[in-house]
Amino acid sequence: MEKIRIGICAPSTPLYPEEAEQLIVSTRKSHPAAELIFHDQCFAIEGHFAGSDQLRSDAFVALANDRHIDALWFARGGYGAARIADAILSRLQPAAHDKQYMGYSDGGNLLGALYKADIGRQAHGPMPVDMRRENGMAAVERGLNWLVHQDESSLEAHVQSDQKYAAFNLMTLAMMVGTPLLPDLDGHILMIEEIAEYLYAFDRALFNVTSHLAGKGLAGLRLGRVSEVPENNRPFGEEAEDIVQRLCARFDIPFLGTADIGHDVDNKIVPFGALTT
Amino acid sequence: MEKIRIGICAPSTPLYPEEAEQLIVSTRKSHPAAELIFHDQCFAIEGHFAGSDQLRSDAFVALANDRHIDALWFARGGYGAARIADAILSRLQPAAHDKQYMGYSDGGNLLGALYKADIGRQAHGPMPVDMRRENGMAAVERGLNWLVHQDESSLEAHVQSDQKYAAFNLMTLAMMVGTPLLPDLDGHILMIEEIAEYLYAFDRALFNVTSHLAGKGLAGLRLGRVSEVPENNRPFGEEAEDIVQRLCARFDIPFLGTADIGHDVDNKIVPFGALTT
Repeated sequence: MEKIRIGICAPSTPLYPEEAEQLIVSTRKSHPAAELIFHDQCFAIEGHFAGSDQLRSDAFVALANDRHIDALWFARGGYGAARIADAILSRLQPAAHDKQYMGYSDGGNLLGALYKADIGRQAHGPMPVDMRRENGMAAVERGLNWLVHQDESSLEAHVQSDQKYAAFNLMTLAMMVGTPLLPDLDGHILMIEEIAEYLYAFDRALFNVTSHLAGKGLAGLRLGRVSEVPENNRPFGEEAEDIVQRLCARFDIPFLGTADIGHDVDNKIVPFGALTT
Repeated sequence: MEKIRIGICAPSTPLYPEEAEQLIVSTRKSHPAAELIFHDQCFAIEGHFAGSDQLRSDAFVALANDRHIDALWFARGGYGAARIADAILSRLQPAAHDKQYMGYSDGGNLLGALYKADIGRQAHGPMPVDMRRENGMAAVERGLNWLVHQDESSLEAHVQSDQKYAAFNLMTLAMMVGTPLLPDLDGHILMIEEIAEYLYAFDRALFNVTSHLAGKGLAGLRLGRVSEVPENNRPFGEEAEDIVQRLCARFDIPFLGTADIGHDVDNKIVPFGALTT
């Protein structure tokens, strides 16, 4: 049987080598049809990052341009993907188009940029680093179920095949607004999630995003989980969903309810664009 | 002698009434040519904000449209000005044009929106809330020296009369990027400052801003103080000035050195646009 070969690199921050070894062992059992190929760059450390911009770009490009690799999986978020997105895109060859790309959080910069450039199929979903969470292998295996088997039970339950979607961490998305990384979201349902931001910062970032997307044809917005909200010195006065409803109403964007995504083990998969394309 | 009447409202977060009383008393001595008029809205509290969006808008509009008021001074930053900027601008009458506006931090949203709309003269400078800092009255009095006497020794030392400027808190500016609040900065020297952000978040926000402004004719960038940077779980690997130099080089924006602005008592005044206009 031809294996599904999944290349893993770290566009943002690093993993530990032991984590890679552990994932390779467990995946052999859970997904015998898959082969995980961790690029050494996953374990590089340079300050905040998994190696220099050049090293991270090179690893991504090497895997993306390898026609023997079927999927490129982002090891972990953090920060760093935006810095290398344009360098990567300028170096991608035809083999990069026939590929799946999956990650979330800071990885949204690359999902967005690849989607905008129409290179491959992108999905917002679990990453190898999710193994660190309690019961985190459930998230990792859901990710593999999608990458290896295109298992539709891995999908966020609201995803319908005749509709275009995109999903982002809100702060990541806010920092893409106004830059060349942001794809056209006309006709899309946008799902957002957030972690570890004060509610005033959530409001501020969503103001930025909804103000920017107002009048640009967004089909609707869904709110994923907003977790680990720090206590501020005074209560914000609204919950996250109230904030979303208010800003959607203000900027005439349909608010469609919740989304089953977040920085947690229950994070479901949201393919970019429409499943049928 | 006709007094310079300075109206004070709080577009973001509130002051305490005792602070207003204290400032009125001290200003009578330090600036007898000035009269401070605190709008009651400065002391309103609704969750995070100094009253509802409506209340904060109404107070700003009332002072801005009052032809007996010479300057509108933002009491304090925090978060909230972006939410009311367009409502305010739509209600301003001719009296609002013949006025000074001063503040910083979150108030940058209003400075930027007013500057873009060519309403009044805007300055990035101290606010009443700076009285809370150690030796904070030095900042407050510098602000008054500018509003009351147009004292050029209050100005940031690099400000030259034949050059256009703008100054912003970096995170505030990043959240204006891609929204209608951001003015055209073609030909301007931009000064930025930051407080209480991780260096990775500083890099991320400056990537957003410089990526957006690339090719848009910015005359240069100056870096104010980057203070109260939290410790991250690992060092970022660069200092703030290194980040600015790298991103300016990448996006072909002249880096001009430091700026004497920040969330501190030494925060100097940066008028928007050119002094001679």
